[in-house]
Amino acid sequence: MSFEQDTAVHRDPGGGWVADLQSRWNVGDNPNGGYLLAIAVKAMIADAGRPDPVTVTAHYLSPPSPGPVMIRTQMVKPGRSFVTVMAEVIQGDRERVRVLGAFGDLTHRRGPSRISARPPDIPPPDQCRSLLDLTEQAGRPVPEIMNRFDLRLPPDSPWGRPSEGRPLEITGWIRFKDGTEASTVGAVAFADAFPPTLLGSVAAGWVPTIELTVHVRGRPAPGWLLGTFRTRVLVDGLLEEDGELWDCERRPVALSRQLAMVLSP
Amino acid sequence: MSFEQDTAVHRDPGGGWVADLQSRWNVGDNPNGGYLLAIAVKAMIADAGRPDPVTVTAHYLSPPSPGPVMIRTQMVKPGRSFVTVMAEVIQGDRERVRVLGAFGDLTHRRGPSRISARPPDIPPPDQCRSLLDLTEQAGRPVPEIMNRFDLRLPPDSPWGRPSEGRPLEITGWIRFKDGTEASTVGAVAFADAFPPTLLGSVAAGWVPTIELTVHVRGRPAPGWLLGTFRTRVLVDGLLEEDGELWDCERRPVALSRQLAMVLSP
Repeated sequence: MSFEQDTAVHRDPGGGWVADLQSRWNVGDNPNGGYLLAIAVKAMIADAGRPDPVTVTAHYLSPPSPGPVMIRTQMVKPGRSFVTVMAEVIQGDRERVRVLGAFGDLTHRRGPSRISARPPDIPPPDQCRSLLDLTEQAGRPVPEIMNRFDLRLPPDSPWGRPSEGRPLEITGWIRFKDGTEASTVGAVAFADAFPPTLLGSVAAGWVPTIELTVHVRGRPAPGWLLGTFRTRVLVDGLLEEDGELWDCERRPVALSRQLAMVLSP
Repeated sequence: MSFEQDTAVHRDPGGGWVADLQSRWNVGDNPNGGYLLAIAVKAMIADAGRPDPVTVTAHYLSPPSPGPVMIRTQMVKPGRSFVTVMAEVIQGDRERVRVLGAFGDLTHRRGPSRISARPPDIPPPDQCRSLLDLTEQAGRPVPEIMNRFDLRLPPDSPWGRPSEGRPLEITGWIRFKDGTEASTVGAVAFADAFPPTLLGSVAAGWVPTIELTVHVRGRPAPGWLLGTFRTRVLVDGLLEEDGELWDCERRPVALSRQLAMVLSP
């Protein structure tokens, strides 16, 4: 089974789409939010007739369990440059995720470019440490989803070593462990695949996502992606996680931001 | 007329809400996107029964003209912490803006705080220069909306002086000119009130917003707000504008991000 298979959507003869959530992408008992969004995005791409999720926003309403879901889509606006689509991910009688997005074809865009952001400067993947190994060595529980990604942290990463004063930030290399090369849909999943920025620094039982927006800005070159996620404003238990994803040719792939909430340990 | 009056929404006896778009908030022939979003947010707040737009995302589909609009809302999910609502802003037979948001009460939140972001360090408003004055002195057209805000740029601001190499960034003080103290709804309008970051640096006829997301993180203290807007990744004519708003007590009020598109001059 691969990311592509596990996110497959099928037309429901009664209208809309169906998919089967796999527990392989669980964190605890529930499928990860980036995985859920990737599934919704696949249905939306098919309806939009455009390959790239240029900007997608998910509101997480109620965590689903592994198993079948329905995806009800609505064409909000067809357009020349972008097609806007809404989706509802439904399990049982409850809506679980509401998604709004604009889809286009990034390879057909023309216009000025100027990039002042730079990818983080860390050693190559083979000189970095596997998050899975680090987690196992620390005797911590390994969420099922952690087996789906090859995620490597730089040798000097403070991650896993509790340190109250450090910046709320995590940087590393990522790719699918099954060998799937990341598409722009894969990039959406990567935008929610890193451990929470708070981990080890701020006491938290869990940090559920309220809303996640991903702007996919380029199709990734084959190979590793480089991700960095940062929290600068944690106020009364609400925080943003700002993400940047770069491909191995140092080109920007996606900017993401989520609003999350700290639940007590 | 004030911001509060110009953004007033009224229940439509036939269901939903109505509002009257005022040309006073126009950029060219069309009302500004932050003004439109503030109107939708007022209807959504009324339906949610929660005062603060904690995270709202607008997709701009088709620019409306001044005049009446309908706002059709849908309760997506009632909840204890947050209430999720969707809205459609409709004029004539066309949907103009689709909004998805989660609403709460920021004064009731409890949880850890840690803020590493800092407000930009610029001179106080009385030592800054009025954007309106600068625009008039430069002999440039003054968009109607520029008369609604008192927006002051630091004396060393490169804004208005074309300079190809400078960072795509604009910082300044802002408040409503009519004396309205900003609420969390006002903060939503402020998140789209600054001139485009590209202006003077990248040739552009217009920079329409595709999608705008605002996370309101605190209720502003009365007085001036400090805003800073930055573009770091302009690729093939697509760009983000990342905004931060702080109140005059140096507390964070909102983080915003929009995806926009460069149209040729």
